[in-house]
Amino acid sequence: MSTVQCVLAGSAQMMLFALSLPKESIVVVEGAVALLDNPLRYTTVREVEIQVRKLYCISRAAPKLPISVEDAGRSAEEFAKAEAKGVPLPCVGQDTRLDYRVIDLRTAAGQAVFRVQHQVENKFREYLSSKDFISIHTPKLISGSSEGGAAVFKLEYKNGKCACLAQSPQLHKQMAICGGFCRVFEVGSVFRAEDSNTHRHLCEFVGLDAEMEIMRHYFEVCDIVDGLFVELLRHLNENCKTELEAINRQYPFEPVKYLESTLRLSYEEGIQMLKEAGTEIEPMADLNTEAEKKLGQLVREKYDTDFFILYRYPLAARPFYTMPCYDNPAYSNSFDVFLRGEEIISGAQRIHEPELLAKRAVEHGIDKSSIKWYIESFRYGTPPHGGFGAGLERVVMLFCGLNNIRKASCFPRDPQRLSP
Amino acid sequence: MSTVQCVLAGSAQMMLFALSLPKESIVVVEGAVALLDNPLRYTTVREVEIQVRKLYCISRAAPKLPISVEDAGRSAEEFAKAEAKGVPLPCVGQDTRLDYRVIDLRTAAGQAVFRVQHQVENKFREYLSSKDFISIHTPKLISGSSEGGAAVFKLEYKNGKCACLAQSPQLHKQMAICGGFCRVFEVGSVFRAEDSNTHRHLCEFVGLDAEMEIMRHYFEVCDIVDGLFVELLRHLNENCKTELEAINRQYPFEPVKYLESTLRLSYEEGIQMLKEAGTEIEPMADLNTEAEKKLGQLVREKYDTDFFILYRYPLAARPFYTMPCYDNPAYSNSFDVFLRGEEIISGAQRIHEPELLAKRAVEHGIDKSSIKWYIESFRYGTPPHGGFGAGLERVVMLFCGLNNIRKASCFPRDPQRLSP
Repeated sequence: MSTVQCVLAGSAQMMLFALSLPKESIVVVEGAVALLDNPLRYTTVREVEIQVRKLYCISRAAPKLPISVEDAGRSAEEFAKAEAKGVPLPCVGQDTRLDYRVIDLRTAAGQAVFRVQHQVENKFREYLSSKDFISIHTPKLISGSSEGGAAVFKLEYKNGKCACLAQSPQLHKQMAICGGFCRVFEVGSVFRAEDSNTHRHLCEFVGLDAEMEIMRHYFEVCDIVDGLFVELLRHLNENCKTELEAINRQYPFEPVKYLESTLRLSYEEGIQMLKEAGTEIEPMADLNTEAEKKLGQLVREKYDTDFFILYRYPLAARPFYTMPCYDNPAYSNSFDVFLRGEEIISGAQRIHEPELLAKRAVEHGIDKSSIKWYIESFRYGTPPHGGFGAGLERVVMLFCGLNNIRKASCFPRDPQRLSP
Repeated sequence: MSTVQCVLAGSAQMMLFALSLPKESIVVVEGAVALLDNPLRYTTVREVEIQVRKLYCISRAAPKLPISVEDAGRSAEEFAKAEAKGVPLPCVGQDTRLDYRVIDLRTAAGQAVFRVQHQVENKFREYLSSKDFISIHTPKLISGSSEGGAAVFKLEYKNGKCACLAQSPQLHKQMAICGGFCRVFEVGSVFRAEDSNTHRHLCEFVGLDAEMEIMRHYFEVCDIVDGLFVELLRHLNENCKTELEAINRQYPFEPVKYLESTLRLSYEEGIQMLKEAGTEIEPMADLNTEAEKKLGQLVREKYDTDFFILYRYPLAARPFYTMPCYDNPAYSNSFDVFLRGEEIISGAQRIHEPELLAKRAVEHGIDKSSIKWYIESFRYGTPPHGGFGAGLERVVMLFCGLNNIRKASCFPRDPQRLSP
């Protein structure tokens, strides 16, 4: 988005007309471009201005806007300064922003966030395409739930059938592997009916998913994640400078620290680091948010990176389709990836043997018959495979150090919000 | 996907083991690569074979498969020939194929279709990105329906709210324009609860959507469609040769005829052509499938193209948000695009004036309050804008001359089918 300074250089009548226009109205101007002696500070076009001779109003905004772009675009520092001066500025709360999202999106940071998001998606596709992945689209309306549990939206399909909204493309991306595609990825909507009112959960988000044949070891999946994200982080830093500056002005953040070859720690090593630092963790359960944050800090101190892989999770902490470790079935061929102390990616080798898969589903309390079509898919010859999934909004949020995932979603959906 | 000939060159025991393996089992082989005197005909690797010394079974398929890849991969011609010889071959019906989609996808044509689809999506994104569009993701869970009408899936959201599954990204992609993004596109799921049991309708498909500011005339949108699709058709013909050959072997089709600059006919001209050919059409209604087909034929005969734009549709035939023509409000600033006599794209300028938009919604029997958040978005200054939408599966179906859209969807959803 460009901004340019316009100076009215027409009749007094035109001047009056211009002054009568509410802010945010859309106008077309005709005039002369004039070189400036001193470059401007608050426009993106800095060397010239337009001396306007004709002005047409194309779309007149309402005389009183519910929020102003200026107020929505201020940084915490600006607020603090104004407060200190005794002239506090109007502050636009997160909820009000989202109620008037179409105005909120017009801030420099708002525009920038979605340009970064565009680059994340492009790079994800480009990198995986270069590694012989093809993009697929799996159904979001499915019979049976993809991840089990209660956090699933249900609806009436045609002919009295009951459908679930896919909580991930998990089942069908694996079935694409069964279908002979060696490497696939998907960028698509996923739905979680969770009552999570946190800074990092949404009821609907965009999944970045990949699934691939494994030749020898599930670290082949980690290798793809490693290559992809190191390339992505580099690409964003190099190609989104303007956008990152715009975001930084409103929401200051430190650049992500990362290593050229991503650090891989085993879950046991992670637990040990936490233990040594005085944080006791139930060794066969999942890490909670607090422990993740703490581990992120410890890793940053020790290895100087905000980005690392934690592998070999306890089987009990993973979904039913996760492959147990061959040497110890209490653990699994799985990993999570962390960025700035928050989980950003989850991945694993999957069970490709139908009997074991059915057994594990039952052990997780899943009605086998509801995902019969999934389990049956593995009866016709399936290569060992694994994959990973990330959330586009969470990647953008954590990369840009935003404090709320809603800032990285155009029109976010959470338990309280279904509009605009 | 590559195929290679393997010749067993080990012990008698290995030979017996190999013979015991059901078809479609996954094996790992070790052996020597041998150059062949005569190139093979039925493998993709033709100059060499592998003389297998070791053979490991990684995944044993069920002894009896519900359908065989060979049967699923035969062309109509093969069936006819076998029939003529008095040794008819087993024919796999469309429904059976879809029941066992993971096997059906393994055919050469099945693999090829989704590689073409991958290219369509990549080109769509690449072309629009090069024209300064950015990719966005709009919510699929919305309060109020995107296109009106009854063909909408409804569900219970959180806190007792009722949500609709978006029938298109229409409302929110326009709201992204309100949000200051000048040009946006989206590749995402759309949901239609229609009872259409046709060869070209699905209850869930992938929408290819774009929306952009208009400077002078809605033909700017046609220009983007024109440039994008001419580039896409050229790209597919040049870069998907192997895939198109594979599809052609099972489902023979003629290449698409198209012009370097896409033919644009007004709706009135189209009606006139049909009239002259003896097909009378209600002049202010939409074309039916038959008339579309006929017009496609007439245009092909007269202009030698399978791809053209029909613009300036009667307003009554278009959705409520379509901008009427300034010179005659019985018509609209809208267009459809046809490929092989079927509608493939729909586009138009949109109403950016909130009062007119609200009035048109009411005239279409839409409860204004259910889309208040949409109409309100235009009160804060909105540039004139327009856009278009296509269905990914339909583009692939029509480009490849497939007879059924289900062949272009990995796991299709129709009124009868919610699995696999």
